[in-house]
Amino acid sequence: MTLLQRFLPLLAQLSDYGREKLRGDLSAGLTVGVMLIPQGMAYALIAGLSPIYGLYASLVPLVVYALFGTSRQLAVGPVAMVSLLVAAAVAPMADGNTELYVGLALLLSLMVGVLQFGLGVARFGFLVNFLSHPVLSGFTSAAAFIIGLSQLKHLLGIDLPRSNFIHEILWAAATQLGEVHGLTLLLGLGSILVLVGLRRWAPSVPGALVAVGATTVIVWALGLAQQGVAIVGSVPSGLPSPSLPPLDWGSVQQLAPSAFAIGLVGFMESIAVAKVYASRHRYEVDANQELIGLGLANIAGAFFSAYPTTGGFSRTAVNDEAGAKTNLAAIFSAGIIALTLLFLTPLFYYLPKAVLAAIIMVAVAGLVDWEEARYLWKVDRRDFGLMALTFVATLALGIEQGILVGVIVSLIVVIYESSTPHTALMGRLPDTETYRNLKRNPDAMTRSHIVIVRMDANLYFANVSTFQDLILDLDVNDPALRAIVVDMYPVNQIDSTATHTLQEIIETCRRNGVELYLAGVKGPVKDVLDAAGLSEELGEERFFLEVHDAADAAEARVDEEAERAKSEKPVSS
Amino acid sequence: MTLLQRFLPLLAQLSDYGREKLRGDLSAGLTVGVMLIPQGMAYALIAGLSPIYGLYASLVPLVVYALFGTSRQLAVGPVAMVSLLVAAAVAPMADGNTELYVGLALLLSLMVGVLQFGLGVARFGFLVNFLSHPVLSGFTSAAAFIIGLSQLKHLLGIDLPRSNFIHEILWAAATQLGEVHGLTLLLGLGSILVLVGLRRWAPSVPGALVAVGATTVIVWALGLAQQGVAIVGSVPSGLPSPSLPPLDWGSVQQLAPSAFAIGLVGFMESIAVAKVYASRHRYEVDANQELIGLGLANIAGAFFSAYPTTGGFSRTAVNDEAGAKTNLAAIFSAGIIALTLLFLTPLFYYLPKAVLAAIIMVAVAGLVDWEEARYLWKVDRRDFGLMALTFVATLALGIEQGILVGVIVSLIVVIYESSTPHTALMGRLPDTETYRNLKRNPDAMTRSHIVIVRMDANLYFANVSTFQDLILDLDVNDPALRAIVVDMYPVNQIDSTATHTLQEIIETCRRNGVELYLAGVKGPVKDVLDAAGLSEELGEERFFLEVHDAADAAEARVDEEAERAKSEKPVSS
Repeated sequence: MTLLQRFLPLLAQLSDYGREKLRGDLSAGLTVGVMLIPQGMAYALIAGLSPIYGLYASLVPLVVYALFGTSRQLAVGPVAMVSLLVAAAVAPMADGNTELYVGLALLLSLMVGVLQFGLGVARFGFLVNFLSHPVLSGFTSAAAFIIGLSQLKHLLGIDLPRSNFIHEILWAAATQLGEVHGLTLLLGLGSILVLVGLRRWAPSVPGALVAVGATTVIVWALGLAQQGVAIVGSVPSGLPSPSLPPLDWGSVQQLAPSAFAIGLVGFMESIAVAKVYASRHRYEVDANQELIGLGLANIAGAFFSAYPTTGGFSRTAVNDEAGAKTNLAAIFSAGIIALTLLFLTPLFYYLPKAVLAAIIMVAVAGLVDWEEARYLWKVDRRDFGLMALTFVATLALGIEQGILVGVIVSLIVVIYESSTPHTALMGRLPDTETYRNLKRNPDAMTRSHIVIVRMDANLYFANVSTFQDLILDLDVNDPALRAIVVDMYPVNQIDSTATHTLQEIIETCRRNGVELYLAGVKGPVKDVLDAAGLSEELGEERFFLEVHDAADAAEARVDEEAERAKSEKPVSS
Repeated sequence: MTLLQRFLPLLAQLSDYGREKLRGDLSAGLTVGVMLIPQGMAYALIAGLSPIYGLYASLVPLVVYALFGTSRQLAVGPVAMVSLLVAAAVAPMADGNTELYVGLALLLSLMVGVLQFGLGVARFGFLVNFLSHPVLSGFTSAAAFIIGLSQLKHLLGIDLPRSNFIHEILWAAATQLGEVHGLTLLLGLGSILVLVGLRRWAPSVPGALVAVGATTVIVWALGLAQQGVAIVGSVPSGLPSPSLPPLDWGSVQQLAPSAFAIGLVGFMESIAVAKVYASRHRYEVDANQELIGLGLANIAGAFFSAYPTTGGFSRTAVNDEAGAKTNLAAIFSAGIIALTLLFLTPLFYYLPKAVLAAIIMVAVAGLVDWEEARYLWKVDRRDFGLMALTFVATLALGIEQGILVGVIVSLIVVIYESSTPHTALMGRLPDTETYRNLKRNPDAMTRSHIVIVRMDANLYFANVSTFQDLILDLDVNDPALRAIVVDMYPVNQIDSTATHTLQEIIETCRRNGVELYLAGVKGPVKDVLDAAGLSEELGEERFFLEVHDAADAAEARVDEEAERAKSEKPVSS
C-alpha cells in the first residue's frame, strides 16, 4: 500500500476496480440516494432544522468520507441519534432565533469534526471501547422514546413544547387533545401503515419515498394545505454555497460537552456497523483512520451547511444489500442528492410534515431494545442494571446527562475491576509438577511453612495494593510461614508504584522472617526489577523459571534452617 | 471480634492491654503532643488561619480517630499538604474576611469528613489506588515549593501576595528586597540552623520546641516585638467551644471539588503510612474503616473549630519510635494539647511568626523528592514523565488542577492499558503438551490451518474489541485458516458486551469457513456462555479442558474435511 493510498483509502479500493464492482456501486448508490431524500429531510426535523438541511448533510460529508474512510459499505449522513443530540445542544442556546440555530448547528459540526480528526490523529480510537454495549443500548432505547415524542406535534398537527422530558410533552399533548388536526393525523397514520406494511410485505420497495410521493400528490391535488395541513413549503433550490460557521468563543465553550458526546456517540455507532460489514467482506477497518475520515467529513460539511453526520446502521445495511463494493457508491448517492437539490426541490413544496414525522417514528420504534433487555436479564444482571440505569437517567436527567451517567458508572466498574484482580493460592496437582488454584483443585497439595500465590494481572499502581494486602495478610496471619513463592508468569508489565510496593513487601516479610521467591518472571519485568535494584535486594538465587523449582528451593531452605535451629537449641533434660 | 469491637477498633486494641503497652503509649503520646504544639501552629499558618486553629485541629480529631481508626501508630492532626489545599480552596472565597475564612475552613472539614465517611461506608476505599506513586510524588514536590514560598513573607518580614504561582511570589519578593526586616530574618535563619543542626546531631531533641521556646524568650527579653518582629500575639485560652459550621449551599457547591481533593489526598497520605506501620507490627488496617475513622474525625472536628486533618508521615514515625502500641497514645497527645490550650497559651504571645515559617520550610524541604525523580528516570521513563507532568502542572496551573491533571492522565493510561491487554499466538513446546507464546519460544511448533491464541485478561467491554480485532485479523489475513483455538484459561469473567462480540466473531468466522475451539473455559465463564446461548451456538463438542486436546480435535476435523474435499473432487486427467 502506498503512502497516498494510506491517506486516501479510496485509491486502494479502486486499485482492482472492474465493471462488476461498478455495477454494484451504481445500484447501491442510487438506492441509498433515493432513501436519503426523505430520511435526510425527516432527520433534519429531529435536529430542529428545516428539511433542506438534511439534504445538505447528505452531500459533502458523503464525498469526503468516501475519500478518507476505510469502510467500503458504510453509508454516512444524517442519523436520528446524532440529530437528537444536535437539537438538545443547540435549541436552548438559540432561543428561537432560526439563523443562530443554523449557525450553531454548523459550528457544532465543525467542532465534532475537529475533535474526531484530532482523536484519530492522536490514535485515541480506543476511547470508543469505553461505551459499553448495555450503556449504548439503554441510551438508544431512551433516545428512541424522546425522538418519537418530539415528532408527536407534527403527527397531531398541534403545537407542543420542545422538551427532552417525556412527561412534559405528554402532559402538553393531553391538554391539547381537542385541537388535534384530523386531516394531518390521517395523513400521518396512513403513512405509518404504508411504511409498516411495505416493510413487511414488500421490503424491496422504498417505503419512505412512496409515502412521501403519494401524500405530496394527495395534498397538492386535494388542496389540503389550505385546510391546515402543515407542509414543508418552499425549499430553496441549488447546491449549498460555501460559508464559514460562526466562530464565537463563548458558543464554542458552551457547545464543547455536546461536541464531545456527539463525536463519541457518532463514532461509536459508525465503527460498530463498519466492523460488521468489514468482517463480512473480509477486510479491515482502522478505528483511527475512521475517526479521521468522519472528522474530515464533518469539518468539510460544516463549510457547506451540513450539520453533524456519521455512519448510519440501516442505510449501511441497504447499501450492502444493494451491492456496494467501494466508497464510489457513496459518491453516487451524493450525486442523487445533488441532482435533487438542483432540480427537484420544488416538488417538496406540498410535502406534509406529518409524513416526515411518520417516517421518523417508524424508524425509531425499532431502536427500543426490548430484546437486549431480556438478554441481559438472562446473561448478566449487572449489565442489565447498567442498561436500566442509563435508560432511566437519559429519560429523567436528559440526553447528554444520561449517557454521561452510564459511561461514568461503567468506568467506575472498570476502575474497580482493574484494582481488584483475580488472585489465587496455589497447590501442586497430584503426580505432576503443575500448580493450580487450590479453590478449584481441592486435591492439590500444599507444603508446610510455604505458600504459593498468583495474581492474574500486570502489577501497577491501581492494583498493587491488592497484591500487597494479599502477601501481608498471609504474612500477618500465619506465624509459622517462612516462605512465599509468587508465580510471576501472568505479569507482563510492572510500573514504578509496583516496584516501590514490592520493595516494602520484601522488607516487611524479611523483618518477619519470611523470604520471597519469584517464579516465571518475564524478560521485560526482570529488566525493571533489575533497574529498581530489587533483583539485588532479593538475591538472584530467589528467581526461578518454574513454580515447582522455586517451591523446592524454598522448602530446602526452610528445612535447613529448622535443622540449624534444632542443633543450636541446647539439649534439654 | 465482637460487633462493638469492629465499630470501635480501640476496644479490640485494649483487649490485652498491660503496663508494658501503657508505658509505650504514654511516652509516645507525650512526645507527639509536645511535637504537635509548634507544628500545629505552623501548619495553621500554611492554611492561612491564625496559629490557635492548629491546636484546635490537634484535639478532637485525634480522640475521634483513636476510637474508630484501625491503625495503632497513626498520628492524626494538621499536616502541611492538606493545610495548603485548605488555603487554596478557602482564600479566594473569603476575600480577606477572617470570620468567613474560618467558617469556610470548618465547613470544608465537615464536607471532607462526610465524603470520607460516605466513601468508607460504601466501601470505596479502592478509589485511593488511583493516585499513583509518581503523581503523588510530583504533586508533593511541587506543593513543597509552593508551601515553602508561601512562608517567605514571614521569614523576610515583608508583605507578599498569597498566590499559588511561584513566579508571582518571587517577583513580589524581588521588588521588595529593600524592605526585608533584618531582625525577623535573623530569627528565622537562626531557627533553621537550630532545626537542621539538632536534626543531624541530636535527633532525639524536639528541635521545633527548642526553637520556639528559645526565640520566644529572646523576643520577650530583648523586646524585639517593639522593633517590628511580627509575633503571634494574644492567643485565646481554653478549649474550643462547640459550634456549627456555616452550612451555606452556595459555599458547599464551590468547595465541593476541594473537599474531594482533600478527602482523597489526605486519605492517601494517611493510608500509605498506616500500612507501613501495620505490616511492621504485623496487624492489618482496613482501608474502608480508615476512611470511616478519618471521616468521623473531620466531621467531629468541624464542630470543634478544627480544620481538615489527616494522618501525617513524620509524626507517625515519631509516635512509633517513641513506643506507641495503641491509639491511647493519640489520646494522651490530645491531652497535652488540651492542657496547653487551658494553661499555656499566654506563653505564645511573644512567639515570632518567623520561627513558625522556619519550622515549615525545614519540614517541607524534605518533601521535594529528587531521589524519586532519579529512581523513575532509571526504572520507568513513562512514570518519570507522569511525575514531571504533575509537578509542572501543579506549579503552572495550581494545586488542585495539578493533581487533577496527574490523576486524569494516569487514568487514561489505565483505560488504555485495560483496553489493550497482552495477547499471544501460541505454539507447542517440543516434546511436551504445553503451549506457550511463539514470540518468546521460537522453537515452539505451529500446525497448518490452525492458530492458537490467548488473551491475558478478562473479556469485557473495554477490551473485547482488541480480542475481536485479533481474531478477525487472523481470519482475514490467512485464507488457508480453518480453525482458531482460543485458550480461555486467563479469562475469569465475561460480560454481555463480550458475549455479543463473541457471537459476531463466531458468525463471521463460520461464514468464512473457520471454526472456533475454546480451551480451559472456567466455570463462571461457561455459565455466562450457556445463558447467552453461545455454548449451543458453538456446540459443546468445541469445548476442551486443555489447549492440546482442542488443537488435536481441530486438526482431526481439518484433516477429515480435506480428505472429504479430495474424495469429492472429480478425478482429473
